[in-house]
Parts: sequence; C-alpha cells; structure tokens
Amino acid sequence: MNTGQTIAEQFEALQQHICSELNKVDGLTEFKMNPWVKEIGSGVSGVLQGGKYIEKAAVNFSNVGGDYSEQMHKLLGENASSYIATGVSSILHPVNVHVPIIHMNVRYFELDNGTRWFGGGIDLSPHYVVKEDARWFHEELKKVCDDAHPDYYDRFKPWADDYFFLPHRNETRGVGGIFFDRIKPDEELSERNLLEFCIQLGRLYPQVYAALILRHGDKAVSEQQKKWQGLRRGRYVEFNLVHDRGTKFGLVSGGNTESILLSMPPQANWEYMNEPEANSPEAETLNLLKRGIDWLNM
Amino acid sequence: MNTGQTIAEQFEALQQHICSELNKVDGLTEFKMNPWVKEIGSGVSGVLQGGKYIEKAAVNFSNVGGDYSEQMHKLLGENASSYIATGVSSILHPVNVHVPIIHMNVRYFELDNGTRWFGGGIDLSPHYVVKEDARWFHEELKKVCDDAHPDYYDRFKPWADDYFFLPHRNETRGVGGIFFDRIKPDEELSERNLLEFCIQLGRLYPQVYAALILRHGDKAVSEQQKKWQGLRRGRYVEFNLVHDRGTKFGLVSGGNTESILLSMPPQANWEYMNEPEANSPEAETLNLLKRGIDWLNM
Repeated sequence: MNTGQTIAEQFEALQQHICSELNKVDGLTEFKMNPWVKEIGSGVSGVLQGGKYIEKAAVNFSNVGGDYSEQMHKLLGENASSYIATGVSSILHPVNVHVPIIHMNVRYFELDNGTRWFGGGIDLSPHYVVKEDARWFHEELKKVCDDAHPDYYDRFKPWADDYFFLPHRNETRGVGGIFFDRIKPDEELSERNLLEFCIQLGRLYPQVYAALILRHGDKAVSEQQKKWQGLRRGRYVEFNLVHDRGTKFGLVSGGNTESILLSMPPQANWEYMNEPEANSPEAETLNLLKRGIDWLNM
Repeated sequence: MNTGQTIAEQFEALQQHICSELNKVDGLTEFKMNPWVKEIGSGVSGVLQGGKYIEKAAVNFSNVGGDYSEQMHKLLGENASSYIATGVSSILHPVNVHVPIIHMNVRYFELDNGTRWFGGGIDLSPHYVVKEDARWFHEELKKVCDDAHPDYYDRFKPWADDYFFLPHRNETRGVGGIFFDRIKPDEELSERNLLEFCIQLGRLYPQVYAALILRHGDKAVSEQQKKWQGLRRGRYVEFNLVHDRGTKFGLVSGGNTESILLSMPPQANWEYMNEPEANSPEAETLNLLKRGIDWLNM
C-alpha cells in the first residue's frame, strides 16, 4: 500500500514530467521551479511566463496537512481532526486565442478518521470551440478512462459538465472533459490502480496540449479575436474565484496564495452586456457552452 | 413609516442624482440607464464606459424580493419565508491611476418575520495611497456619520477595515471608509433618520469623487504606473468575487449577473510574485494597506 508520502512523491515526479514536456512544447521559455514551505506544508510552484506559445502556465505540486478546521468541515463535511492533502494542479493560458485554455488536477486527500479520497480532472476551455478538437480531446480522455475502469468516462464526463459550469452565466467553462472526486481506494479500484489512473491523466495533459499548439499555435489573430480572448479569460477568472472548490479550499486552508492564484490569466477583461453578433464565431462558441453535449458523436 | 416601496423610490432617486452628478464630473461621456426586469424584481443599471476620467462606472439600483431560499439562509441566517431587498450600489474605475477606485452601497432588507435592516458603506481604493486624500476622505465620512449618530464613525470605520480585507493577501482593499450592516430601525435611530443617513452618504459619494478627479485626473502616468493599476485592479476582482457578500448574495439569489458584475474593472492583470522594490511608491502603498490605521490623525 502507498502511504500519503509515497503518493506525494509520485505526484511530484508527475509535476516534473509535465514541466519538462511543456518546456519542449514552448521552445522559447522554460518553467522556473519555486519551492515553498509554509506552516501547513510545502510545495513547488512551476511557473512559465512569456513563452512563445504559452503566455502563462502554472504546474503546482503541494503536500500539506494539519488541523481539520471548522471552515474545512463546512466545505467538505466529514468529522475529523486532521488531514493531509497532496496533488498536482495546472492551468495553461496560451498566447494564441485559437489555442484553448486547459486545466488538469489530480489529488489525494486523507483524514485521520480513515477517509481517503482521490480526485481530479482535465477540462478544455477553447476561446473558440472547434468541434473536431473537442471530439478528439474527449476520445483521448476516454482511452485513459477505459484503461482504468469501463464506467469511468461515462461517469466522469457529465460530472465535468456539472462542475465546470457557471450558473450565473448559464454557461459551461468550455467543452468539459472529466472530473471526479471522493473516489475511495479499494471500493472499485485498488489504491495502486487509482493512483496509476491519476498519473496517466497527468501524462496525457502535456501530450494533448502539444497537439493543440501544433494545430493552432501559429494561426493569425485579429484585434476582435484578441478582445474576445480577454472576455473569455474574464469568465475563467469568474469560475475560479466564485466556484472552484480547489481555489476556495486553498485560500481558506491558508495555502500559498501566489501558487493558488497562478491560475489567474495574465490579463482579463470585462465589458457590460457584450453580445456577439448572430452567427458570428463568438456566438457559435457560446451556443456550444452547454452541458450534456456528446462530444464523441458530434 | 416608510414602506419598503417608498425606500426603494428614494434609492432610485438617489441613483439618478449620483449619475447626474458624475455626468458633470466626467464631461465627455454620460451614463446609459438600462432598466431590467427579472422574476425576482427589477432594477436600473446605470453604466458609463469610456469616459474622459471614468473608464467604467456602474451605479445600480435594484428592488427585488421573493422566497427566502436555503442558500440565502446559509448566507444570512434568520428564519423567514420571503424577503425584499432594495439598494443602490456603485463602483467607479478611473482612467488615471492617480485617481482611486471608489465604491458605495446603501441597502434596505426586510423579511416576512419582521426583521428589517439597513446597511451600506463607502470605501476608497487608491492604486497609490496619498495620505492627505485618505485623511480628507475620512473627515468627510465622519461629518456625515456625526450628523446621524455620535458613535457611527467610530463603529463603522473599523467595520470597513475588517470587511474590505483580503485575508489571502493580508491586505486591506484600500484605505477603508465606513461599513455597516443589519442596523435595525427604531433601535438607535428611527427608520426615517437611518434612511436619511443612507441618502446623505450616497450624496457625498459623487462629491468626493469630483474632488479626487479635480486633484489627480489629469496627472501624467508612466508605463510602470499603468501596469501597477492592472495589478491593483486584479486585487479588486479578487475581493469582489471571493469575499464581497453583496456580489455573492446577488449571484446566489438569481440577480442580474451583468449588473452585479459591472463592478469588475474593464481590465485586470495578474503576475506571479510581483514584489515592488523597497521604498518604491508601490511598496509604500502596500505598507499602508493595513487595518486599524487612524487616517484622521495620520
């Protein structure tokens, strides 16, 4: 059996793998690895800013623990007195509007009452939805899911639709992906196999991004498209600060603020009542930001 | 006694007064008044974008009500089955970095269990703190407070320090101001006098801003200062989306999203680990973003 510490080590190795792969993808700028230590634990913030293709990327590893506070109880339920949490969390904001924003997280959580959970997910937020990309992205996710458990894709895909959703905008954050939480080891998969599933997801992440950059990273961008990118980044900020449980948990538990808010885009814009013209690419994208789309069969 | 409806009418008149005063201040661009009606009620969003001095301003009036939901119960406590809420809420983002961001809100809330509350506040968020401005701003607030109740400034000033605070940054949002909530009519002031206090605060707001624009609105701005403005606006976004109860209440209660998020700046920036040089104006500002500063005697 893996202890929390061994899982943390594997997650840290995953972080290094992701950064190293993304360094090759960008070519111009490399990740700077910033280790940090706080009262609640430690971590390494991998940060790339100002790349050729990647405008801002965060690949964070953390391994924390401590008292299970009243605020954490409110967020998570469960009665316990202490916890440990370790994970890798990443968001990439591309330079080019035709390349999507992407997010990946894998995490392990343990309480002293015996509760142990794995969780994670990957989701894709194109500024402009390209149906073929969305289908291919979901196909790649399904392969990794199917290798772990025959039900996972069908369970975790709608979970992402529901999780990466902005009720106040009635929009999904993008074309979804998969999301899972509170998966207990030894119920449906062994701890070893659950961990392996997380690692395989993490390894898929830079592969997917490399392909998307190759497809779209050098496309021409108009002023109007650039402006749209700022507005879509604004939505990303709204999701992360209003809804994202990982961000809330991090800020509430006294995590490393600069690492947690590395998910923020370098720049975001807001405009009152921006409504794209009918049939414009922007309007088509908004039409596809809905839950329940079967991307595999689009 | 004023009914909720009469209070709403006075708040709507206050909104019109503020917009009209700010139109004179900006000189170039005027507020567009956008009435809206939703299931929960109605309102008017006053919006000014692209002014000479005011880059983006929102002056919102709303008058809503309905079922007191489980989510509202969680936010506010109290057992009730229906509520009404009316108020004016405003945020101004200036063009010039030397002019502060400013916020004002006055509100009235009534539950069918008999609970009635007034609340509100004004706070100033300079991108660069100017001590003389902060002192003068607090002096003006104290005058309005003293006219209503001898204890109000001393009670409401620290309340603003605590409310307009970002724990995850260990920073106040700015130089504070006053904040008050759940002040019940007829306990210390009559409803009439409490409403009058709210109206006087609302009328002070454009006066203060006119003076600040006159002092700083035409100052030269460097590239570095402009960049700092983007980062400070990022903090403003963090406060509003993570902490502000009005924003949360609005988004949770099914309010008008575009109106609520009019508080967002037109543009905001984030940069990993931005740390101003020692003794720079930026570092001096950060040093003054603390609770408990007695601005009246700085």
